[in-house]
Amino acid sequence: MTLVAPPAARLGATLAEIGTPSLLIELDAFEANVRGMAEFTASCGVALRPHAKAHKSVKIARRQIAAGAVGVCCQKLSEAYPFAAAGIESIHVSNEFVGADKVAMAVELAAHTRLSVCVDSLPQVAVLGVAAAEAGVRIDVLPEIDVGQRRCGVTRSDDLLRLVDAIAQHAALRFGGIQAYHGGAQHIASWQARGEAAKLAAQRASEFVSALRARGVDVPVVTGGGTGTVEFDARSGIYTELQPGSYVFGDGDYGSIEWAAFDRPRQSLFILSTIMSATRPGIAVCDVGLKGLAVDSGLPREVTALSRVETPELAYAGANDEHGMLDVAGGLERGTESLIGQRMLIVPGHCDPTVNLYDEFVCVRAAQVEALWKVDARGLSR
Amino acid sequence: MTLVAPPAARLGATLAEIGTPSLLIELDAFEANVRGMAEFTASCGVALRPHAKAHKSVKIARRQIAAGAVGVCCQKLSEAYPFAAAGIESIHVSNEFVGADKVAMAVELAAHTRLSVCVDSLPQVAVLGVAAAEAGVRIDVLPEIDVGQRRCGVTRSDDLLRLVDAIAQHAALRFGGIQAYHGGAQHIASWQARGEAAKLAAQRASEFVSALRARGVDVPVVTGGGTGTVEFDARSGIYTELQPGSYVFGDGDYGSIEWAAFDRPRQSLFILSTIMSATRPGIAVCDVGLKGLAVDSGLPREVTALSRVETPELAYAGANDEHGMLDVAGGLERGTESLIGQRMLIVPGHCDPTVNLYDEFVCVRAAQVEALWKVDARGLSR
Repeated sequence: MTLVAPPAARLGATLAEIGTPSLLIELDAFEANVRGMAEFTASCGVALRPHAKAHKSVKIARRQIAAGAVGVCCQKLSEAYPFAAAGIESIHVSNEFVGADKVAMAVELAAHTRLSVCVDSLPQVAVLGVAAAEAGVRIDVLPEIDVGQRRCGVTRSDDLLRLVDAIAQHAALRFGGIQAYHGGAQHIASWQARGEAAKLAAQRASEFVSALRARGVDVPVVTGGGTGTVEFDARSGIYTELQPGSYVFGDGDYGSIEWAAFDRPRQSLFILSTIMSATRPGIAVCDVGLKGLAVDSGLPREVTALSRVETPELAYAGANDEHGMLDVAGGLERGTESLIGQRMLIVPGHCDPTVNLYDEFVCVRAAQVEALWKVDARGLSR
Repeated sequence: MTLVAPPAARLGATLAEIGTPSLLIELDAFEANVRGMAEFTASCGVALRPHAKAHKSVKIARRQIAAGAVGVCCQKLSEAYPFAAAGIESIHVSNEFVGADKVAMAVELAAHTRLSVCVDSLPQVAVLGVAAAEAGVRIDVLPEIDVGQRRCGVTRSDDLLRLVDAIAQHAALRFGGIQAYHGGAQHIASWQARGEAAKLAAQRASEFVSALRARGVDVPVVTGGGTGTVEFDARSGIYTELQPGSYVFGDGDYGSIEWAAFDRPRQSLFILSTIMSATRPGIAVCDVGLKGLAVDSGLPREVTALSRVETPELAYAGANDEHGMLDVAGGLERGTESLIGQRMLIVPGHCDPTVNLYDEFVCVRAAQVEALWKVDARGLSR
């Protein structure tokens, strides 16, 4: 008999019975987010291609596609494998890659799914074109343009034109359009300033598109956008396809920015945690730290105690590897010990890297476990 | 045929052939660290019980034990499972836990390994004592005392005495000694200030021990200490057993603090990464971000370019989910494109949570892959 740790939860378990720390999806909120985004993008006449880097889950991708999405984005080639293996028919790798091992992955994936990828330099096109031809596969190539992120993507339209020309020289490659993503704009707190940043990005994209059209190049797809700017991007008239990812979950960062015309995503992702030590006035210690929540966008901002009536207010104040330090409002002079065993729902600061720490989602509805979903692409960063 | 991403490396591969990003161990440095700590603690007459939360790897635990360690520490019960399953004969869970599922795990583990655990409240002792008796297992219990960390552990010797008395009431439990760990002291930059903090912690531990001895209680083990204070703790005369973890790897944080009498650990842990985009002067983008390195202790501080002769100096300046932003010294006006494909060894800021992002270590010696070791306890945080 193999000795392995017991599962965190069984179907039907209550919040009091789930092992902690665990990664929870509240299904009502999650489903509302999936449906809401699909309806909004459809009403604006733009395609929805959600970013699977947020959830890394085949079951979630299938729900997004059932709601109307045209496929998914992945950020890495290895991340795309579980989705291709599960029969997701259209995958866009929204990122550049280099190296023989990576090109071999792209070609293998293209034999199993309709694959598109990004490039921003000529050698990437050449190597991919040759490998795809040898393997007898077809790959859509979308040059990335820099619309304000100052990260990847060409910065001048003549560089874009050179890429388009290079793609045209390879029968196995097809120019699929362009990618225009401004990550930094997603998190601007002011709704108006975010809208202005999105507008500038769209305008920049529009200039690149015009340069291509002036050369007689048709641009079938302009893909980009994220959860924070989707309402602006959808109405920009320039994007044909949007890539929001975090909208299915929400997180502390997205929870703290200003929303207006488009509804704020409902928070559906939580860490369930338990207080396991409380020996000092004003301080309690819970069982989730750096190995169970990402702190790159700050510490968790919401801690909701479950079930006990007179629980003082708790604030997540510090993370060690496996400990979370909680400030206990009012101090509970010498009485914090009563908090031991207290369970809490914690909203992580940043959903994507938090999800990447867990092997499964514990999906709950009305405080009971309804499903367990694998984080299929966890750790697949190549 | 199942469609899965190809392995990151095969045995014998060179640094140019390993898929990126990957988690690398440089074996010469690693082995020197394993040997050095074993020899140092032995020379001081204290037991070495390395913390497996740093590496989560059975193969590394076995090497530590072969070098003289008495067993390992784990920080969570679920983390202990792969070590117990692999036959590691002595495991100390250096942390408190609460809940029926956790107690069941402790009892199951105790049937397979010599298990010790920490407590800092009376109900934990009672529940564990009953469950261990029912299961017919024996568990060593080490109350934790707070020696300056202000996290877990009792703060007063009368609370400690109450715990010792409670343990004595359960035939299935045995008082195993005390745990005295000051995490904050590990990272104090000044060697002298760190030594003073360690000395204060040892003095505090000594007061608790005296209180027990005054009551006629023998204290078989005083366990604690970490990589940053091990040289002070080993010579304190109060610790009988030390728990360093990070010493096998080193990291950006430990690399930046001052070391003196005891040798600084050699850096053995690296992220191998590739530049995959470089479209702007002064900036390049590599393929490892938040999902491949922990940033809680700051961004990586060392980036070493491989193989190319005239590579400009690179500095890791920002992390997105799957992108690392690099500052390129000198700017390389319009010439950064030549950096595409450049590989680098990156020292992560904090080793423990970085290791927890990967499923395997790619172990290299003389720039060739000699072994692939699983991160057996990755993600096991319950």
